[in-house]
Amino acid sequence: MQKIRSGTLAALLLGSIFTPVLSHAAPADSAAIRDSALKDDVAFAFTEGLTTEVGPRPAGTPQEARARDWAVAKLKALGFSNVRAEPYTMPVWVRGRDEARIVSPFPQNLVLAALGNSGSTSEKGIEGEIVYFASIADLEAAPAAALKGKIAFVDHGMKATQDGSSYGYFGAARRQGPSIASKKGAIAILIRSIGTDHHRVPHTGVQMWADGVTPIPAAALSVPDAEQLARVIARGQPVKVHLTLTSKMLKDQPSGNVIAEIPGSDPTTGIVVAACHLDSWDQGTGAIDDATGCGIAAASALQVAKLGQPRRTIRVLMAGAEEVGGDGARAYYKAHGAEKHALAIESDFGADRIWRVDFKLPQGHEVLAKRIAGALAPLGVGASTQEAGGGADIAPLVKAGVPVIDLQQDGTRYFDLHHTPDDTLDKVDPAQLRQNVAAWAVTLEAVANAPESMGVN
Amino acid sequence: MQKIRSGTLAALLLGSIFTPVLSHAAPADSAAIRDSALKDDVAFAFTEGLTTEVGPRPAGTPQEARARDWAVAKLKALGFSNVRAEPYTMPVWVRGRDEARIVSPFPQNLVLAALGNSGSTSEKGIEGEIVYFASIADLEAAPAAALKGKIAFVDHGMKATQDGSSYGYFGAARRQGPSIASKKGAIAILIRSIGTDHHRVPHTGVQMWADGVTPIPAAALSVPDAEQLARVIARGQPVKVHLTLTSKMLKDQPSGNVIAEIPGSDPTTGIVVAACHLDSWDQGTGAIDDATGCGIAAASALQVAKLGQPRRTIRVLMAGAEEVGGDGARAYYKAHGAEKHALAIESDFGADRIWRVDFKLPQGHEVLAKRIAGALAPLGVGASTQEAGGGADIAPLVKAGVPVIDLQQDGTRYFDLHHTPDDTLDKVDPAQLRQNVAAWAVTLEAVANAPESMGVN
Ligand SMILES: [Zn+2]
Ligand SMILES: [Zn+2]
Repeated sequence: MQKIRSGTLAALLLGSIFTPVLSHAAPADSAAIRDSALKDDVAFAFTEGLTTEVGPRPAGTPQEARARDWAVAKLKALGFSNVRAEPYTMPVWVRGRDEARIVSPFPQNLVLAALGNSGSTSEKGIEGEIVYFASIADLEAAPAAALKGKIAFVDHGMKATQDGSSYGYFGAARRQGPSIASKKGAIAILIRSIGTDHHRVPHTGVQMWADGVTPIPAAALSVPDAEQLARVIARGQPVKVHLTLTSKMLKDQPSGNVIAEIPGSDPTTGIVVAACHLDSWDQGTGAIDDATGCGIAAASALQVAKLGQPRRTIRVLMAGAEEVGGDGARAYYKAHGAEKHALAIESDFGADRIWRVDFKLPQGHEVLAKRIAGALAPLGVGASTQEAGGGADIAPLVKAGVPVIDLQQDGTRYFDLHHTPDDTLDKVDPAQLRQNVAAWAVTLEAVANAPESMGVN
Repeated sequence: MQKIRSGTLAALLLGSIFTPVLSHAAPADSAAIRDSALKDDVAFAFTEGLTTEVGPRPAGTPQEARARDWAVAKLKALGFSNVRAEPYTMPVWVRGRDEARIVSPFPQNLVLAALGNSGSTSEKGIEGEIVYFASIADLEAAPAAALKGKIAFVDHGMKATQDGSSYGYFGAARRQGPSIASKKGAIAILIRSIGTDHHRVPHTGVQMWADGVTPIPAAALSVPDAEQLARVIARGQPVKVHLTLTSKMLKDQPSGNVIAEIPGSDPTTGIVVAACHLDSWDQGTGAIDDATGCGIAAASALQVAKLGQPRRTIRVLMAGAEEVGGDGARAYYKAHGAEKHALAIESDFGADRIWRVDFKLPQGHEVLAKRIAGALAPLGVGASTQEAGGGADIAPLVKAGVPVIDLQQDGTRYFDLHHTPDDTLDKVDPAQLRQNVAAWAVTLEAVANAPESMGVN
C-alpha cells in the first residue's frame, strides 16, 4: 500500500470543494462502475471480433492493415471520438516454411517456429550436427571451435511465475542466443521454446541481431520437441538435424497506430493514455496477446464515459508493431510526445484476473493512489510497493516521466500460450476479462477525474 | 462384482489340491506382485525408448519397420523367449501436405490434418464454399443439391467420458462423414476433431470409404480452428476455403507383428495373449497410443515371470497396423488362431490409472474372476458387471470365443491427445503407468496360473 501523508490529504480535501467531478471518485461511484463493468460485454465482443474477423495480424502486413480498418470502424461504432489510424512504415520479416527433422540417429520430424528476424535457409534447407547447451550461460562459455559449422541447441526450461518475472531470465535464450551462436560460427540455432506448456506449439518471438552479426536461421522447438531432442542427444551418438527455415525481409511496409478518444472537459489537465497493441504474432489469432488488452482499454474507457464526461481526455492507443520492436510506440511518441500526458497505462499480459496494482505517480499523489487502491480492493486487487514500469507501447512516455499505473494480471498460464498457435479465443475467460475491465474502469475514472494536477508537458 | 456359485467354489478348492501353482494366486503373492509392479521401471523405459529412438511409426512405413526391429531387440534384452517379427503386407496411405486457409470473408490459415485414406488434392489445392452441419445427422439429412461442388463442415463437439464411450457416438463424423459427403457430391469434407482438448493440434484417424464411393479430400480441423470456422460462418456471409491435402496410396508395403513369450510349464493349458499395438499415427510419437500399452504388456509379463515359470505361456503380441484397420490382428489370427488360447487381454487406452475390470469368462469361472477382482481391489480397481469386449488387436480372437478381460483405464484426458501431434512422452504419468503394470501383473498371474481349464481350441 502507498503511504499517505496528512498534508497531502488536507490538500486533497481542500481541492474537492472546488472540483465537483471529484464526486466520480467517491466510494458510491466506484461501486457503481465496478458493478457495471463486471457485466461488461464490450471487451469480449471486441476480442471475439478482432480475432475472428481479422485473425492473425503480424506487424507491417496486410492483416495488420485489416486490423486497423476493423478497429477504426469498431471504435467509431462504440461511440469514441477522434478515431483515426496514424500510419508509419517499417521493415518487416515474413515467415516462410518452418520444417525440421532429426536425420540421425533416430529419424523423425520436429515441430518448431522461426524466431523474428531469423536468417533464411535455401528451399532445400541445411543440415548440421547439434551441439547441446543447457543454458545461455553455457552457450556463452563455449569455445567457438565447438560450434563452427554446427547447430547450437539451447535447452533452458522456463518456469511459470504469477507476475511474469521469469520472462526476463529465461527469454535471454531467444533474445541473445542467436547473436552469440552466430558470432561463434554456428550455422543455425535452436532453442527450447520460452514457454511453460507441454504442447506441440512452438513459441516464436522477436530477436535482434547484435551489431555486425550475420543472421543465421534461428528457431524455437516446441517444449515436447525440445525434450525429445534432449533425450536423443543424451543417448550419446552424434545427432544430425535438417532444417528448412525460409523467410524474407521487406522494406518500408505500412503499419500504424489506432487512436480513439473520450474527450475530457478540461484539455489543460492532460491526456490519460490507455494502451494495448493491435498487432499479433502470426501463428495464433493474438487473443490474449493482445486483443484482450485492446478490449479492456476500450471497454473500460466506455465504462468511465457512462458516468458522464471525464475531466481529462481518455485516449485509447492501439499500437501497431509491438511484437517486433515497438515501432508503433515510437511513432506515437514522435507524433504526440509534446502533448501533456497525465498518465499512461497498458494492458499486455493476457486477461486473467488482475491481482496487484503498482504505481509510479509524482510526489504528493499518495492520496490518489490510496483512492485507487481502495476502489480496486473489492475486486481482489492488492496494492504493492513495487514501482510501476508500464509496457512497450507506453515505454517512450514512461521514459519521458509520464506517471504510470500497472494493473498486473495473473500470468501463471500466460506463457503456456504466448506467441504460439494456441493463442486463440477459447483461452479467454470472460469472467476474468470482466474483472480486468472493472479494475481498469475504476482506475481510469479515478485518474481522469482526479482534482490533482498531474502529468508531463 | 461377479456372482459366485458355491458349486464352482467347491470345484476350485478341489482343483487346488492338485495344482501347486495355485499358490501364485494366493493373497500373499498378489501383494508381492503388486508391490513389485508398483516399483516397475520397465514399462516407462519401454515407452521412453520406443517413442525416443523410433518416434512416430505409421503402419506399413519404414518407421514401423524400425519399431519392429527395436521391439525385437528390446524384448530379447528383457529376457523374453521366442521373440520374432511376423511379417505381412498391406496397402498404405501416406500423408503429404495439410494446408487450409479461409479465402473469404476473413482470410486466415486453419490448422488441420488429413484423415486416413483421404483423397488427395493437386499440389495447388482446391477451393470451395463451406456448408455447415452441426452433426453427422444433419449432414445425412441434407439434400445432395446443398453439397454439390461444395465443402462440407461437420462441427460436432466431443465430450469426454471416463470410459471412452463417447468415441463411438462422436467418432461417426470421422468414420461415416466422408463417405456421406462424397455421395452427395461434396468436393471435400472438414470435421471438427474428434477430441476434447482446446489446442491447435488436429486429431487424425482412419476412415474407410463405403463401397463405390469416390474418395474426396477429408480432414479434421483442430478444435480451436473448428470453433473459429463456426464463428466465421455464423457471421452469415458465404465462406470460401482453400484446401491443399496431398497424400498417396502405396500397395503391398511391409508391416508385421512382434511376438515374445514367457513360456509356460504346461503347453496344453493354452496361451494367455497380452496385446497392444506397435504402430502409431504419424503426427505424434504414439506415447499413450500405444507405446504405454506395449510397455504395460511387456512389463507385467516380466513381473509374473519373476515369481517363477507360470503354468500357461504368456505371449506378448505387439500388433502392427492397428490404427489403419487391424491388419496385424488379422495376420495374427491367420497364423495362430488354431492354437489354444486361454485368454486375451489388450491395453490401448493410454496409461492413466485402471479403475475398473470387466470380464468375459466361460461359465464356471466366477471364482477366478473373484480372485482377480480381489487382487485388483487394493489398486483402486472396481469390478463391473459389464461384459469385457477387448480391443482391435484381439478382436478376431474374441470373436472366436477366446475369454477376455478388460482393465479399463481412466480415459478422461485420453481424447485430449488421441491421434494428435501432442501424443508425446511428457503426457505419460509414471506413477499411473506403474499402477497399470500392477493391475496387469496380478491379472496375468492369476490367469496364467489358474487351475481352471480355459480357452478355445
Ligand atoms: Zn503483447
Ligand atoms: Zn491405439
